[in-house]
Amino acid sequence: MKKYSEMNTIELTTLRDELLNELSGHKEKGKKLNMTRGVPSDEQLALCNDMLTCLAKDDYKAANGADCRNYGGLDGIPEIKKIFAELLEISPDEVIVGCNSSLALMFDNVAVNMSHGVRDGTPWQKQGQVKFLCPSPGYDRHFAICNYFHIEMVPIAMGQDGPDMDAVEHHVSTDPMVKGIWCVPKYSNPTGIVYSDETVRRFAQLKPAADDFRIYWDNAYGFHDLHARAKIPNIIRLCEEAGRPNMVYEFASFSKVSFAGASVTCMASSKSNCEYILKRLTAQTIGPDKLTQLRHARFFKDAQGVMSHMEKHAAILKPKFKLVSDTLNRELKDLGIASWTEPAGGYFVSFDALDGCAKKIVSLCADAGVSLTPAGATYPNGQDPKDSNIRIAPTFPPLNELEEALGIFCTAVKLASAEKYLAG
Amino acid sequence: MKKYSEMNTIELTTLRDELLNELSGHKEKGKKLNMTRGVPSDEQLALCNDMLTCLAKDDYKAANGADCRNYGGLDGIPEIKKIFAELLEISPDEVIVGCNSSLALMFDNVAVNMSHGVRDGTPWQKQGQVKFLCPSPGYDRHFAICNYFHIEMVPIAMGQDGPDMDAVEHHVSTDPMVKGIWCVPKYSNPTGIVYSDETVRRFAQLKPAADDFRIYWDNAYGFHDLHARAKIPNIIRLCEEAGRPNMVYEFASFSKVSFAGASVTCMASSKSNCEYILKRLTAQTIGPDKLTQLRHARFFKDAQGVMSHMEKHAAILKPKFKLVSDTLNRELKDLGIASWTEPAGGYFVSFDALDGCAKKIVSLCADAGVSLTPAGATYPNGQDPKDSNIRIAPTFPPLNELEEALGIFCTAVKLASAEKYLAG
Repeated sequence: MKKYSEMNTIELTTLRDELLNELSGHKEKGKKLNMTRGVPSDEQLALCNDMLTCLAKDDYKAANGADCRNYGGLDGIPEIKKIFAELLEISPDEVIVGCNSSLALMFDNVAVNMSHGVRDGTPWQKQGQVKFLCPSPGYDRHFAICNYFHIEMVPIAMGQDGPDMDAVEHHVSTDPMVKGIWCVPKYSNPTGIVYSDETVRRFAQLKPAADDFRIYWDNAYGFHDLHARAKIPNIIRLCEEAGRPNMVYEFASFSKVSFAGASVTCMASSKSNCEYILKRLTAQTIGPDKLTQLRHARFFKDAQGVMSHMEKHAAILKPKFKLVSDTLNRELKDLGIASWTEPAGGYFVSFDALDGCAKKIVSLCADAGVSLTPAGATYPNGQDPKDSNIRIAPTFPPLNELEEALGIFCTAVKLASAEKYLAG
Repeated sequence: MKKYSEMNTIELTTLRDELLNELSGHKEKGKKLNMTRGVPSDEQLALCNDMLTCLAKDDYKAANGADCRNYGGLDGIPEIKKIFAELLEISPDEVIVGCNSSLALMFDNVAVNMSHGVRDGTPWQKQGQVKFLCPSPGYDRHFAICNYFHIEMVPIAMGQDGPDMDAVEHHVSTDPMVKGIWCVPKYSNPTGIVYSDETVRRFAQLKPAADDFRIYWDNAYGFHDLHARAKIPNIIRLCEEAGRPNMVYEFASFSKVSFAGASVTCMASSKSNCEYILKRLTAQTIGPDKLTQLRHARFFKDAQGVMSHMEKHAAILKPKFKLVSDTLNRELKDLGIASWTEPAGGYFVSFDALDGCAKKIVSLCADAGVSLTPAGATYPNGQDPKDSNIRIAPTFPPLNELEEALGIFCTAVKLASAEKYLAG
């Protein structure tokens, strides 16, 4: 196939007209196809249907004797703390188990650091304009938390090994108003890359200008491998070894392990941070839902049970990611108009179109019935400086719908690219 | 029986020695009896054990077709919104259903009003020293939220009809830094009184000096009648009629309806307030646990189902409240050393000892193996100005243990009172 950059105006015009024609054909079919968000499919959810019935009427006591039906217990029942601790390779007293939303744990954590400060420090909001480093493209809901709290977002370039650590080190060590950084260390949202060991080590060895700088380590896809398990170094242990045991908050979730809307989530940090946080939780909540925790503990049994279960998810997801890869390679590979990632886990493929084409592609897809995450959403304030990045979320649609959606997507990419070259 | 105030020193000394003797007898038994908090008993929790198994493997769709296993839905599934709406006599779009802790909903609501202001107003924390009116004795965890946010608590006297409304009206209408008031309108914690119709009407007709003043209407015991259902006027409708539809946030919970640690809770307010809050929740959470909501909807079916279920709770609780009343009347009635409430619902009996005796009584009980809520906890900052109020929570212990605990309690009351008269 010929590169678009090598086509002349006549070739491009012919191509554009064909593509326009093709897209309007899709439009007429009136399909509604959805690739917007990282949502598990029905087939994946069904893997856990036995959890709906896994408690008997007389099964409500946790290992420590706690009645999971009644009040009590702010940090989670022992069984589920143990599972999270084993998965994250930390100690159970470094884990606080929450309800069903790790986003809520992160929001809450930022909220209290803004209003009350980190541990006994000055509230962030009283120190001036707070800044967070935002490796980009990144997760739009991290950025939404910053937006809500009027936190200035400093974009940091993402590479194959993680964020640009020279830039991270520079900002963190020189600017005391840099109070946090958002990280998705494994199968990063949306690029799908895994932070290298060296990147993780450099994180742990950060020497912040601000004592109250914190790493928000959103390990959202820590168990979500498509193939062999990718291991990343243990950030909690490394921070401890580097003499800054309280510098990191790690978050993990079973949203994409069991039921996306009804799972359990956790926050992990130094024992000292956990103790500090539990004091606040006493004023804040009666505690997390222990019956949901117990159901998870009964169903998965242990960390190995979770990892085995994740293989079933992988079996469902692999063909979808392969379909994305195969389709993009077949349709777009040699045209010089796009690049994309081929992640070994997680929920997304990150797609880079020609500069200035992302919004156009998303809009063309929408017209033809395919919903995508809004272009720009992967950047702070929704502003992709190059207007090139698109997040593809292939997990929710069944294979046949995904195939159809990807076909339309590729047509839209080609059309936007042809139009760009035509416009000169 | 003779009033303590009429006893001479010899009589009091003899009495004191007998009581000391009695208490040390209890101490030697080494029992651990708990009347600290409003916790349902095992027997009450068992009323809902069928909820543990009420979903089949293929039962996860809500009435609106939402898959309760998956993401989506910030305000709750239609079934559970409808149940809360019927119970509170409002519309489902005036209800946002949360997870298992109404305390968390209240904390969260205060947090965002502090940091971001009420609707689009100036954040409370930027306006100066925020004050909340605190009808006292009241609920210690309301006061703990104020403490956490450094909100000044203004105690308001509680009477038989609710808070001293002259004082409430005065503060609210003259002081623009009064931003909130905590109310438990039905079976108030701890006094057990029900706000009169007139009190509720005066609340709705408040003319606050601050536009961003809000009533925190914690209807924690709205369905928790021991006898006939006590009705209070609908504060949401009354505020609407008074032209201030956004002035009240109501909270309700099934913690003491189904499972204390694993129920569903809600916030109710004007449709406009709910819409405003849902915008924030988009940044804050992936939404509440819909499977727990579905279990509640399946188990209770409708509002009538909840009310019928509450009769079963009443049947268990009535003998306990009767035991408290009978014991206190038998042991203390004519001694002139105490008064107490005889509530027709809720979870507490409020007990007033002689001034200066509450801490002593709680401490004597602790020594003899009976745990009570710390004296003073029912007042802002834990400071009961008269040191006389004690909250008795009779719901958790089985009847035989409650009887034993009440016996020790009465002995402690008598001892502290005798010592007070001896000290002159």
